Amino acid sequence: MIKAQTLKGFRDFLPKDAKKREYVINTLKKVFESYGFEPLETPSLEYEEILNGKYGEEGDKLMYKFKDNGDRNVALRYDQTVPLARVVAQYQNDLPMPFKRYQIQNVWRAENTQKGRYREFVQCDIDTVSSPSLKADAEIIACALECIKKLGFKNAKVLVNDRSIFNSIKPTYISAIDKLEKIGKESVVKEFIEKGMDKEEAEKVIDSFDKAEPTETLNQLFKNLEEMGLEKNKDFVFKASLARGLDYYTGLIFEIVCDDYPYGSLAGGGRYDKLIGMFAGKQIPAVGVAFGFDRVMEAMEELGLFPAGLDVTKVLVTNTNEKKALQIAEELRKNEINTEVYLDEKDLEKQLKYADKKNIPFSIIFDKEKLILKDMIRRTQESLSLEEIIKKIK
Amino acid sequence: MIKAQTLKGFRDFLPKDAKKREYVINTLKKVFESYGFEPLETPSLEYEEILNGKYGEEGDKLMYKFKDNGDRNVALRYDQTVPLARVVAQYQNDLPMPFKRYQIQNVWRAENTQKGRYREFVQCDIDTVSSPSLKADAEIIACALECIKKLGFKNAKVLVNDRSIFNSIKPTYISAIDKLEKIGKESVVKEFIEKGMDKEEAEKVIDSFDKAEPTETLNQLFKNLEEMGLEKNKDFVFKASLARGLDYYTGLIFEIVCDDYPYGSLAGGGRYDKLIGMFAGKQIPAVGVAFGFDRVMEAMEELGLFPAGLDVTKVLVTNTNEKKALQIAEELRKNEINTEVYLDEKDLEKQLKYADKKNIPFSIIFDKEKLILKDMIRRTQESLSLEEIIKKIK
Repeated sequence: MIKAQTLKGFRDFLPKDAKKREYVINTLKKVFESYGFEPLETPSLEYEEILNGKYGEEGDKLMYKFKDNGDRNVALRYDQTVPLARVVAQYQNDLPMPFKRYQIQNVWRAENTQKGRYREFVQCDIDTVSSPSLKADAEIIACALECIKKLGFKNAKVLVNDRSIFNSIKPTYISAIDKLEKIGKESVVKEFIEKGMDKEEAEKVIDSFDKAEPTETLNQLFKNLEEMGLEKNKDFVFKASLARGLDYYTGLIFEIVCDDYPYGSLAGGGRYDKLIGMFAGKQIPAVGVAFGFDRVMEAMEELGLFPAGLDVTKVLVTNTNEKKALQIAEELRKNEINTEVYLDEKDLEKQLKYADKKNIPFSIIFDKEKLILKDMIRRTQESLSLEEIIKKIK
Repeated sequence: MIKAQTLKGFRDFLPKDAKKREYVINTLKKVFESYGFEPLETPSLEYEEILNGKYGEEGDKLMYKFKDNGDRNVALRYDQTVPLARVVAQYQNDLPMPFKRYQIQNVWRAENTQKGRYREFVQCDIDTVSSPSLKADAEIIACALECIKKLGFKNAKVLVNDRSIFNSIKPTYISAIDKLEKIGKESVVKEFIEKGMDKEEAEKVIDSFDKAEPTETLNQLFKNLEEMGLEKNKDFVFKASLARGLDYYTGLIFEIVCDDYPYGSLAGGGRYDKLIGMFAGKQIPAVGVAFGFDRVMEAMEELGLFPAGLDVTKVLVTNTNEKKALQIAEELRKNEINTEVYLDEKDLEKQLKYADKKNIPFSIIFDKEKLILKDMIRRTQESLSLEEIIKKIK
């Protein structure tokens, strides 16, 4: 017999986890939409040439590529930014500009799964395309922080920097700067020296971050953020040593971190004015943020941020009196109470165990002509009319 | 330059369409959950051996299969039933039984796109696994019909039959029976004859449908449906010539049709007691329904069933007074009004055109210290305080 198993790095989400994922996605969507971002969906498969070469050598290696039945070279979506660039070029006459979209879809990467990475995972992005305005930057930051707060994170803040601060430093050094906090000044100096800088220069560069002042652009951005109700040095903080590895950023860069969860940022983004126009053949400014969906899920689990009551079903109508059970269930549903009828004829004990296993908070038991409402959490019960039951559950 | 294009049979959903899809999916989810169905997600990629041979020759041909980077034979999800069977086997000790799940994910089939078929499309299923009860059948039907009604379809009804009616007919004839209405008795008789039946017998079989009575099982099911508030011959109708092509059904079969949209059924399903146990090595009863998602979308478009107000953004704050604009937008969002600030500094005319293009129903214009609320639909405007504006928009 064929073994029932999933591929390494691919996951099933059983109802308990699927509901948590839905909760997070719905919370994010609601905030995105409050800022005027609208949903976009792109195909899972694209022509390979659309994706190829856009993610560097590493990306080309990790991409899922194959020949389809028509012998076309195709590849599974690797991120949502290159498809966005394609969409912007393909529908440039139809899209209202600025184009503000959110996108929450799976991407596929043949990662080494030993690092706790997955080969199929949700990406969750918002981007504003074609506006060079600093207001667009401010809005992306405010919206992203609002998302994190709405998910229940306390002590979250945005670390902000301007990529132009590094204009005098060769790109090859920039990725090392991000490690400053993690590995310390000495190790970064060492890495700089290995890459060809002399020691004095390396130390000078690194020390310069301590004394650095926000650029004029950042100061204007900070003013915008304050106008939007964000508090300086609490909600957002200037951090001159924030570099963000990717080399496509052209201005603002930022990350959202949470003091209660020191295992990496929950979201990150910035302005990237030279990327989105790649298929349109012209420069199109853009600014955006990507949430680390799996990390957010993990952090929420660890910090206990999932609310009670995510469970779908509110009441189990037990099966001892067939006709009434179906009728009562319909009545409850009409009153917007999610209701399950126990389907098979088993003893009551088994039915209540099922309610427990599914975290259903109430059961209805028939006692001759009366209804008994059993509170599955407090393990109490009382005899009530259907109207009283509806009132109580709501 | 690389041409910005999508693969044949694959679709982008720009915001206008993506919002309609979201609306339908959210409506369905809400009804599913009111009946105690819970979400399940399975991976897009599976071991090929899990999917292979499960969908017949046709399926094996249309499946997207390839070797991954680790030289494993993998395939993209072809439907959601085989993955459900895998899940049931893989987690049989963890899942509460009966297992009632809904699943709304993409599947991929290398179909001939000329028939208006897509190669990537959403499937939307609910299934109750491991209950042999007729109540489970009744619940699936009631839930599915409720979904169609909640989407706004009038004159929708469920055609119901029992597959056991065809027990005396060889499977090779069954698929022709479904065509009775479309091609007429004479053509079906001809098809029967071509398949080897003699004329007299063929006519007898087909005439028998006119006189057929519901089986005992169906009569019990109809009683259950009536207990759930469904009206016989209005909400559900016995139809002895409903066959449903697929040969895995073992009992109840049904389709939901709508008199206002005579281009095929909106949903269909039935009981299939011999399929779900395929990986568990034992027989596990199951009953379910699949919605034709793309057909539902098409029918809703044609019948004008999408409600007004699906548009995400409710108000555009125009950009003539930078500081106030951001503040006012924040205030509106706090009052749960989805608000967009125009980001760039362009003339007012252009900004209002943008609001029109995005179907934003209100704009706020600054006139010295006053606020003007412009109704973009009625093309009227009035001078109001922020509080009045909030009240008006809500």
